[in-house]
Amino acid sequence: MIATKANRVVQAAGNAKVVDFGLRRAQEGDAGMTGARAAYLAGAVATSNVLAGKEYGIPISGTHAHSFVMSFPSELEAFRAYVKTFPDNSTLLIDTYDTIKGARNAVIVAKELELKGKRLGAVRLDSGNLEELSKEIRTIFDENGLNYINIVASNDLNEYKISELKAKGAKINGYGVGTELITAKPVAAIPGVYKLIEDEDGAKIKLSLEKQTYPGKKQVYRIPDKEGNYSHDILALEGEHIFGIPLLHKVVENGQRIVERKSLLETRKYCLEQISKMPEETKQVSAIPYQLKISDGLDTLVQILTNKYSKEKNENNLLECRYAV
Amino acid sequence: MIATKANRVVQAAGNAKVVDFGLRRAQEGDAGMTGARAAYLAGAVATSNVLAGKEYGIPISGTHAHSFVMSFPSELEAFRAYVKTFPDNSTLLIDTYDTIKGARNAVIVAKELELKGKRLGAVRLDSGNLEELSKEIRTIFDENGLNYINIVASNDLNEYKISELKAKGAKINGYGVGTELITAKPVAAIPGVYKLIEDEDGAKIKLSLEKQTYPGKKQVYRIPDKEGNYSHDILALEGEHIFGIPLLHKVVENGQRIVERKSLLETRKYCLEQISKMPEETKQVSAIPYQLKISDGLDTLVQILTNKYSKEKNENNLLECRYAV
Repeated sequence: MIATKANRVVQAAGNAKVVDFGLRRAQEGDAGMTGARAAYLAGAVATSNVLAGKEYGIPISGTHAHSFVMSFPSELEAFRAYVKTFPDNSTLLIDTYDTIKGARNAVIVAKELELKGKRLGAVRLDSGNLEELSKEIRTIFDENGLNYINIVASNDLNEYKISELKAKGAKINGYGVGTELITAKPVAAIPGVYKLIEDEDGAKIKLSLEKQTYPGKKQVYRIPDKEGNYSHDILALEGEHIFGIPLLHKVVENGQRIVERKSLLETRKYCLEQISKMPEETKQVSAIPYQLKISDGLDTLVQILTNKYSKEKNENNLLECRYAV
Repeated sequence: MIATKANRVVQAAGNAKVVDFGLRRAQEGDAGMTGARAAYLAGAVATSNVLAGKEYGIPISGTHAHSFVMSFPSELEAFRAYVKTFPDNSTLLIDTYDTIKGARNAVIVAKELELKGKRLGAVRLDSGNLEELSKEIRTIFDENGLNYINIVASNDLNEYKISELKAKGAKINGYGVGTELITAKPVAAIPGVYKLIEDEDGAKIKLSLEKQTYPGKKQVYRIPDKEGNYSHDILALEGEHIFGIPLLHKVVENGQRIVERKSLLETRKYCLEQISKMPEETKQVSAIPYQLKISDGLDTLVQILTNKYSKEKNENNLLECRYAV
């Protein structure tokens, strides 16, 4: 869920980098940890969650807080103190008082760093009109020969806002995305639940209105086109002959893992490779869902069980409802 | 956040009872635990989270799954097995195949229970038109002299849907609310963060556009009317003389708790008493927010610091921004 949201944000950001800023808004601490992992897996380049960096090896990225600036007599003094501690690749948060003046203070600090052979990494905007401010600040930096300073934006961002900023030509090189990413807003939960589909008596179906289940043991096949890109998936019964790549593999047998665990980096690489093969229209901000088709075999089983149900309904006054094949 | 959502649901449900069904949709396990606690605190009568029941002493309530029914040769056999194990106050889920037939099976089981001197507690509807089904089933039960059987509903419910069901006269005695409650949908995160408001140099202000802070140490006063009900709160500076009930109390001093911890039941009682004194319009489904006013003292401090900022802006080319009083 969070990986999907994160990849939507990453797709919207295009060449700009996306950093997970979600920890403080996660619904409890472990959601912040697994969320950071999911975001990285799906294409975020880093996380502001230091523990997730330590536990999972995710690159760490972040800036100081507004309170850091406010705890100094002046913004400039705060910036100087920060780059003294982090002289390499610092990001300065420049909107505590006035963003344009913050940018000018960043210029002063960047020039001071240059004298020491260092470079300021980036500044972060966290309020106001991000499009206009990014353009103004890009100009200020470029006029001062500081075209290497990146501009990072945050402030309740999501894939829609980022897409709009890009369309308007905002000069933003990176996005810190927090609340919406870590809570997968507006889809805060996946409506997936355990359902019984088969037991020793055979395949089982649930017929609740609008909540009917697909019975029987299944396999999902991903169907490639001539170029090796994916056009759709087919949900089929186990054992049906479908031309495609089976997606379900046995990982645990007799309580033992039988497939070696992949590293987060390997999983991330696999995830991004797979997404690169998905149809373009499924990756737009207003995405068209990837198509899932039902196999003939599964379709037939649904009909058999539904017919059997109707038959039993007519024959059986006790209203028994057993469906097995 | 979840307590607020839960109380909105409880207010909408009126005399009907609300049970937290959220565990499986919580964003990680600890969110399911603290969410169950928050829901109970805010007026839910029980939780389906058995561990939360054990840890926090919250009453447990729930039903069997659809898969339980499907694992038996017939729905009737499943119901019989369930009430054999839980003869007291069972709730039967009756929509696995056909809700009306499920209700008739519940009648059979209820009559069998009566022969043993027991009573069926309730049935649960989880799909279809809950309003119409509840009325049909109420009639079926009442015609069979089973007016004591309660009807419980679930199915992605929230305060809006419950309010609509009540308006239409649905015959529902209880609601199981899961996904939307436990994720506090659509408000999945509170936009509250740590801000520096004062340090040894005095009060501090952050002036970011649309994200300005209120400076200085504060107290919040709840203002009662003649009847003891609450009309609004006032956000004031610590030490200002405001007629009202101060809401912030020191709980920890020198790293030690100095106020005894209240039990969950005491906290729940306090919470519900407080809510009963809030203005009615703040408790409607389309609520008007409870009013927060800013004290004269705080308002003055904001102006002093903003003026000081403007003065410094004009005087200081180094763009220093320090605001202390």
